[in-house]
Amino acid sequence: MERESKKIIGLMSGTSCDSIDAGYCIIKPDLSAELIKGINYPYPEFVRELIFKAFRGEINIKELCQLNFIVGECFALAANELIKELGKPDYISSHGQTVYHYPKDDKIEGLSLKSTLQIGENSIIAKKTGCSVISNFREKDIAYGGEGAPLVCFADSVWFKNSLVQNIGGISNVTVVSNNHKTFGFDTGCGNIMLDYCADKFFNKKYDKNGEIALSGKVDETWLQKLLQDEYYSKLPPKTTGREHFSKDYIEKALYSAPNDPKDIMATLAMLCAKTICNAYRDFIFDKAYIENVVLGGGGAYNKAIVKNIRNDLPEKIALKTHEDYGISNNYKEVMAFALLGYCRIYNIPNNIPEATGANEAVVLGKLVL
Amino acid sequence: MERESKKIIGLMSGTSCDSIDAGYCIIKPDLSAELIKGINYPYPEFVRELIFKAFRGEINIKELCQLNFIVGECFALAANELIKELGKPDYISSHGQTVYHYPKDDKIEGLSLKSTLQIGENSIIAKKTGCSVISNFREKDIAYGGEGAPLVCFADSVWFKNSLVQNIGGISNVTVVSNNHKTFGFDTGCGNIMLDYCADKFFNKKYDKNGEIALSGKVDETWLQKLLQDEYYSKLPPKTTGREHFSKDYIEKALYSAPNDPKDIMATLAMLCAKTICNAYRDFIFDKAYIENVVLGGGGAYNKAIVKNIRNDLPEKIALKTHEDYGISNNYKEVMAFALLGYCRIYNIPNNIPEATGANEAVVLGKLVL
Repeated sequence: MERESKKIIGLMSGTSCDSIDAGYCIIKPDLSAELIKGINYPYPEFVRELIFKAFRGEINIKELCQLNFIVGECFALAANELIKELGKPDYISSHGQTVYHYPKDDKIEGLSLKSTLQIGENSIIAKKTGCSVISNFREKDIAYGGEGAPLVCFADSVWFKNSLVQNIGGISNVTVVSNNHKTFGFDTGCGNIMLDYCADKFFNKKYDKNGEIALSGKVDETWLQKLLQDEYYSKLPPKTTGREHFSKDYIEKALYSAPNDPKDIMATLAMLCAKTICNAYRDFIFDKAYIENVVLGGGGAYNKAIVKNIRNDLPEKIALKTHEDYGISNNYKEVMAFALLGYCRIYNIPNNIPEATGANEAVVLGKLVL
Repeated sequence: MERESKKIIGLMSGTSCDSIDAGYCIIKPDLSAELIKGINYPYPEFVRELIFKAFRGEINIKELCQLNFIVGECFALAANELIKELGKPDYISSHGQTVYHYPKDDKIEGLSLKSTLQIGENSIIAKKTGCSVISNFREKDIAYGGEGAPLVCFADSVWFKNSLVQNIGGISNVTVVSNNHKTFGFDTGCGNIMLDYCADKFFNKKYDKNGEIALSGKVDETWLQKLLQDEYYSKLPPKTTGREHFSKDYIEKALYSAPNDPKDIMATLAMLCAKTICNAYRDFIFDKAYIENVVLGGGGAYNKAIVKNIRNDLPEKIALKTHEDYGISNNYKEVMAFALLGYCRIYNIPNNIPEATGANEAVVLGKLVL
């Protein structure tokens, strides 16, 4: 079947459950992606509550089955917002809402317990939008021995060649895409988590917009060196970290030896974020994988202090880019990635990265309902 | 896409959860079906127990997600038994194991609670068998306003023209397929339920094999007329009944006025089964729908007393047939039906009967994983 450009709405909801991300995309035969428009569609409060009940393992089978159909209806409403304005797409590709993920291969009587569940019934989305729907990508990766995650790094591997795709969220993580090394990734350390905490504590702001506060302060070298002693940074990948480690207690303890001026604190933390990222590249990546670019994403990509520090610390020959430089929306990257995964299902193109998920082979993920 | 004959393994497990039915079928372009071989594959005991836990609503989300993957593995093992002997089919079509079905259209904040859940992860079946799998037929019928059931009557409507497809299980039910009336169906009454009870009580047998005991007794007309007074039989369809109505108490009470000779009891109950079926045809079907055949199925189709009584009571111009007369296996009809439903998914042929399920339109049910 010869490939054609397809209009695909990508749908996704993450673990925060604030809202459903919906993105109207064009996926081209070369697998490049363009976002026409992205929106957030909020869940009704009772739906959010039921999803959190599922997270806590307290939901019963009746509620769960009903929630599957209800979330499908919410996803359809999100898609229909875009359809109202932009017309029907060729397909809808939905990640769904993860409510359970158990990637361990424990067995009972030889039968594996490894499993995952993304809800948001695709038949409902198909009916309420009038579109064919692709969904449920993770199950098949698990069936092929993988962990069903991460899936977005397939999009990274397609869109970014010889690049370090650096996400700077609360936690920072990198995906390594190189023509002389298998694709892999790990968490580089605390991203914005300490910065956001201190922006709130000292400046009563949710975050340091554009890194303006950090840019107005001076880096305290002594404190920086102390912070860099955290053992996590020297641990060999694969490794992950989270809010359990970079907790409120951790940050408050770190602040004992901080400089007096809160602006200097912010400047130092922005440097910490950049340093831990660039150190990770030097320690774990550059000697293995050929890299031409670093592609920044996540909220930290808008923090000019972090970006400046990374640029200063990176080898000159490595270009520092944004997702937007490649036509990929930083905010709607995930829905664009799932639109791409759906496109691959239509044209029978393997769309998992075995090295990243642990699957035995590259296979075509996704279930299609007409 | 021009239709070709396809080898399809149908997979199904019912509410008794004894075992998985698997049938290696050939579905032809004219939608006729042939069973090459059918088998029963027993569930491991811990799986059965988990399924019953789900039926009771006592399963938690972790167990349910794991059960979905485990049942998928059991279904794959069942299919592989057939594949070992007969080679790979073109597709596998799996009904799955129903663990939840809520066909009522209650709403919260405008979002419908109507839902259904068939487990047996198709990605696992696909991986472990190496075949593309179609599954999850009921969800889309629900999305289109139906109850997601009955689905087998689509197969009835394809395989049997101008026929009353009469299933005689514990309860008897009929599907009306006629060229001058929409397809519909209802429960005609107690099928074998009273016969089986009395075979056990008076003869210590699980059932009256071939109806031999009933054939050796005489019908007690007085008792028969009394039993026919049950109000269920005169109720207008649509109507369903079950073991709640034809309970142990009901039967024991009925036996107060039974003849003395247990053989006569069996003869009379076999006549009751036949009479209630033929009365239902006269009262609710023959004046509406053009009918040429009655096609018997279920365990009662092997009871020669029931069959003889039905033949005697039916208009002469109506032929009495078995499923086997049409090349359909009585024992493996359901898996053949789901093989057919899968075939229709492949060739984009609508495979629900809106009149039977209540759906707004005929649509193509089933999700395909490669």
